[in-house]
Amino acid sequence: MSPKALAIRDPNYVERVKDAFARQGFLRHVDARVEEVAPGRCVIAADFRSELAQQNGFFHGGLLGTIADAAGAGAAATLIEPGQGLLTAEYKINFLTPAKAARLRAVGEVARAGRTLSVSQVNLYGIDAAGQEQLCALATVTLMILEREAPSFQKN
Amino acid sequence: MSPKALAIRDPNYVERVKDAFARQGFLRHVDARVEEVAPGRCVIAADFRSELAQQNGFFHGGLLGTIADAAGAGAAATLIEPGQGLLTAEYKINFLTPAKAARLRAVGEVARAGRTLSVSQVNLYGIDAAGQEQLCALATVTLMILEREAPSFQKN
Amino acid sequence: MSPKALAIRDPNYVERVKDAFARQGFLRHVDARVEEVAPGRCVIAADFRSELAQQNGFFHGGLLGTIADAAGAGAAATLIEPGQGLLTAEYKINFLTPAKAARLRAVGEVARAGRTLSVSQVNLYGIDAAGQEQLCALATVTLMILEREAPSFQKN
Amino acid sequence: MSPKALAIRDPNYVERVKDAFARQGFLRHVDARVEEVAPGRCVIAADFRSELAQQNGFFHGGLLGTIADAAGAGAAATLIEPGQGLLTAEYKINFLTPAKAARLRAVGEVARAGRTLSVSQVNLYGIDAAGQEQLCALATVTLMILEREAPSFQKN
Repeated sequence: MSPKALAIRDPNYVERVKDAFARQGFLRHVDARVEEVAPGRCVIAADFRSELAQQNGFFHGGLLGTIADAAGAGAAATLIEPGQGLLTAEYKINFLTPAKAARLRAVGEVARAGRTLSVSQVNLYGIDAAGQEQLCALATVTLMILEREAPSFQKN
Repeated sequence: MSPKALAIRDPNYVERVKDAFARQGFLRHVDARVEEVAPGRCVIAADFRSELAQQNGFFHGGLLGTIADAAGAGAAATLIEPGQGLLTAEYKINFLTPAKAARLRAVGEVARAGRTLSVSQVNLYGIDAAGQEQLCALATVTLMILEREAPSFQKN
Repeated sequence: MSPKALAIRDPNYVERVKDAFARQGFLRHVDARVEEVAPGRCVIAADFRSELAQQNGFFHGGLLGTIADAAGAGAAATLIEPGQGLLTAEYKINFLTPAKAARLRAVGEVARAGRTLSVSQVNLYGIDAAGQEQLCALATVTLMILEREAPSFQKN
Repeated sequence: MSPKALAIRDPNYVERVKDAFARQGFLRHVDARVEEVAPGRCVIAADFRSELAQQNGFFHGGLLGTIADAAGAGAAATLIEPGQGLLTAEYKINFLTPAKAARLRAVGEVARAGRTLSVSQVNLYGIDAAGQEQLCALATVTLMILEREAPSFQKN
């Protein structure tokens, strides 16, 4: 992204991203945590436990998608204006290798910050007990920018 | 799908799908349950609770993706041979309307059952307290068929 | 889609969809044609010729994606207001079986007609010389609704 | 990708990729050309002309998807064994900004080279008359590796 596109429009963006994250029951339920917030960037992590696994002891693909969505939305949220909100329009995740790891780390970066839509790319890494990272999944997240923090119900 | 493509290769497919589901810690953690298993079809449901929500009281998009992946994989799993396994290669979900609902229901159906790859389509419905359904998301799930139940670690 | 969601807002929608199609040089270059336009629905077809093929004599995947995008956009275009325009935000296509066929037919249907975004689903069929259809690909197309027919250039 | 994963298995990979490209009628029909082939990487370009455009004078989204598919497949093709073939299983493209440009350039890079599936990421750039590049689209391409160059017809 060009420097112009990454211009921060809300000086309180770090606090706002962390606050939005904290209010999401599902992200707390999966014990995801915010590791880093920077302009156009958000890193989310989760530690392995059996409640996050599928039957072979890997992180579950649904959990990876959840973390990817959170990292992509968090990255896009750093660039919106005060009072605006975001809603995920769609996301897509490719699993590259089974995520057998002690920890999962999703790095979301904004590829496009538009007025109506933002697009984030997310790289997901499995990190083993020795701290070695392996890229295990790739995701793209498209977000719709809302003129208020919560969507209205009369959308049609 | 044509009748030939939906041919059952494992007479114990219902039990196998339910068993694979039950062994996934993450699906238990999100209280997802199998509602229906039929040739080329699997329906997964979850009841609303705040642990599955985002900040506006809707089902979280990551939870919808998780349920979609489970329904798509379950549908594909009905058509594999005894001893084979499945691994999600990728999935993609479009959110059509915020899922403010008492219950979520994901209907997965196989669009293609190949030797190496299967593709499932999933419709996700929000169901309100009065039992009225609304289509709230669409997903596509691509699955890789494994010659044994668990993936090996020397994949490269 | 519910009847309300499929309400036509522009009585000249058929003409407008066909006109927008005719002004796209690339759709003429691939000899795509509009077969049907109805509320929330658009069918696009193309006949096989070697200029549309890949190396094994199948319709090229890029051509299938092009036809899918056109069918999905055409379906969404039936439901917008006079003076509005559409721009594809993203599309995704799964190839189910190689499209070795005399003719290709893409059936696009609107899954969601919103104020800002529309989502269409597209089924692509290969049709052999005897007229028999086979589902060969599935696509999802997300479209952004513009308040004028052409996008402005100062989008950032 | 790690050096091991990018190991070349066919010393004639450059020739093979260019040859497979040249045999695809659709890629010739859209005047796409191979600009670069390297281990795990393939760059495809096309010059603007009205036959590749949509109604507003941008490169058509279907053409961008076609070029993305070609670049992603070309990148994956550099890493397969002699005698193997590739078939696109699915691709997904996000349009970031309308591609109003003199030239289009798609840079495909392998994110995962497996035994059965490969995944490539593609960045698409519009290049104006002054040679300035702008990222205009992102794509992900999933490819199935075939044990011979062409798919058989009794796939089920």
